[in-house]
Amino acid sequence: MTSLRDVAERAQVAVSTVSAALNGTRPVAAATKRRIEQAAVDLGYRPNLLARGLQSKRTKILALFYPAPRSGFGVTEMQFATGAAEAASELGYHLLLSPDSADPIEELRHITGLGLVDGVLLMEMRLDDERPDFLSEAGVPFSMIGRTRDPGTIDYADIDFAATAREAVAHVAGLGHRKLAFFNYSTGTYAAQYGPTIRAGEEFAAAAREAGIAYVDDHRAGSAEEGGEAFERLLAAHPDVTALAVMDDHAAVGVIAAVARRGWRIPDDLTLMLVLSSERVAEMFHPRLTALEPPSAELGRLGARMLIDRLRGDGPPQQRLVPCRLVAGDSSAPPRAEV
Amino acid sequence: MTSLRDVAERAQVAVSTVSAALNGTRPVAAATKRRIEQAAVDLGYRPNLLARGLQSKRTKILALFYPAPRSGFGVTEMQFATGAAEAASELGYHLLLSPDSADPIEELRHITGLGLVDGVLLMEMRLDDERPDFLSEAGVPFSMIGRTRDPGTIDYADIDFAATAREAVAHVAGLGHRKLAFFNYSTGTYAAQYGPTIRAGEEFAAAAREAGIAYVDDHRAGSAEEGGEAFERLLAAHPDVTALAVMDDHAAVGVIAAVARRGWRIPDDLTLMLVLSSERVAEMFHPRLTALEPPSAELGRLGARMLIDRLRGDGPPQQRLVPCRLVAGDSSAPPRAEV
Repeated sequence: MTSLRDVAERAQVAVSTVSAALNGTRPVAAATKRRIEQAAVDLGYRPNLLARGLQSKRTKILALFYPAPRSGFGVTEMQFATGAAEAASELGYHLLLSPDSADPIEELRHITGLGLVDGVLLMEMRLDDERPDFLSEAGVPFSMIGRTRDPGTIDYADIDFAATAREAVAHVAGLGHRKLAFFNYSTGTYAAQYGPTIRAGEEFAAAAREAGIAYVDDHRAGSAEEGGEAFERLLAAHPDVTALAVMDDHAAVGVIAAVARRGWRIPDDLTLMLVLSSERVAEMFHPRLTALEPPSAELGRLGARMLIDRLRGDGPPQQRLVPCRLVAGDSSAPPRAEV
Repeated sequence: MTSLRDVAERAQVAVSTVSAALNGTRPVAAATKRRIEQAAVDLGYRPNLLARGLQSKRTKILALFYPAPRSGFGVTEMQFATGAAEAASELGYHLLLSPDSADPIEELRHITGLGLVDGVLLMEMRLDDERPDFLSEAGVPFSMIGRTRDPGTIDYADIDFAATAREAVAHVAGLGHRKLAFFNYSTGTYAAQYGPTIRAGEEFAAAAREAGIAYVDDHRAGSAEEGGEAFERLLAAHPDVTALAVMDDHAAVGVIAAVARRGWRIPDDLTLMLVLSSERVAEMFHPRLTALEPPSAELGRLGARMLIDRLRGDGPPQQRLVPCRLVAGDSSAPPRAEV
């Protein structure tokens, strides 16, 4: 079995330098560190991390625990994951991608019971999510991307839905629109009390009230078909609506097709914004849609950093809200003159 | 410090049953396993995995090593990752998401030198990729999603570009088209010898030749702007082209805008296919585009399974090619009558 001494000899440094380089206990020059790591690879020297883990009971591994996503992983969810992995890596940690089974608690029990991870990063939060309670009771450090209804002192990074809604409403009000309709995610996400569904719904209503513009929000659409139907119902009941904010990408596809069927044009006849969707997705549409892009990579980074801070010592809870960024597209314009 | 015996006592089973449940050495009834895992969590019992790792030098952790993606992670790349994580989980392994630094070899040396992972899963392969050589020389087991120019006996799962190209060409030829143009990824991906760019380019040319239809493939476009420009150049030189296969999603946006500027309609005046893009993306377009959807989740699953097979024992190399799936949209039709 290869020893620390063998590695030191091959790398032509002191044993204490090998230890410092591999365990990160004191800084080692980059070139030396590289030589030591290469020597460790050449000699198949591997047990240090495990031995260190045994001793300290720390593995420096975090699990990003993701439940079956709403409608397949999209760009946003991937950015949570890659943002978290990058922040973890910068701080000397590693990120496990832990897929959910049918029973999230069972899966959490399994992963944390293995002794493999120092902490857990949760995402796709529901307001009444049972996972934080389980982890708190089990004494497993964790943080959330998103948040429960009452997160108490739990560390989290979430979208600032209030600021996002205010910016979206100010955007259309500034163009002269007096009546805005909001299409939330599917009915199923309400039933699940999916955090973004509930909070975005509440905050858009509040922002419209505050700005003094008329507001319609009793429509939900999670597919192109539902988007098209909701748009027809909306126009039947509120023919004076001139601006529309849509949460679901696919619903937006249906809305745009329905707009075209009426012989209408965007943005001449209707201003359309995509809420919580990336610029990358908004660019796929013609015309390019105005989007409120979520700070996905930043939320992933913040979530991982908070968790690592927590592992390194006690501190006050860290709770951060970050607004979406308004990326103006070609789908926003003043309302039709005749309205 | 909590012992195996403490866990056994709390779960009211024999010590050997705890060991079997936590180490996976023999099957244990699901309910019993759950009770044991809960007892381990309750008592904060953690070192078994590390101890096992020390003893066997196996951690049951794989690293998915991803270089900075071409144009941000998309749905396809995420499906590689989640597919691999799911397959790993089913086989008792865990998947680390390892972001690349500026220097991939340095990063691989670092990750494998830590002794943290049993093996590495590579993705986003270039034909002359240096990562496989490094891992082979270091004796680190690995597999590839994608493949190098000459993968030799290395395990890989990749897209079957030949079958995919034949299916795409048969689709347009079957509709009566006699001239097809192919827009590959950006010039930069040629310079990098990015696997899918080179192989798709070769195989589409071969499939068109085989089918006896005229073929134009000297266009590359990695953005909407480049897509629009390439389309104008194409039509100037080849006004008789009636079908177009586009690799880059954003280039397709530019092509569609250029088609509209001419007063043309898809599919009446032009059949448009998206190659190596998901149905989810194709649905964003209006009309919904015909897509050749890559088997991303399956490739991720295969890559992980091959690597785990390799870790479990020697066997013949596993090399699998899986074709894209043609998802017919509303962008395919017979050519204009006058052509």
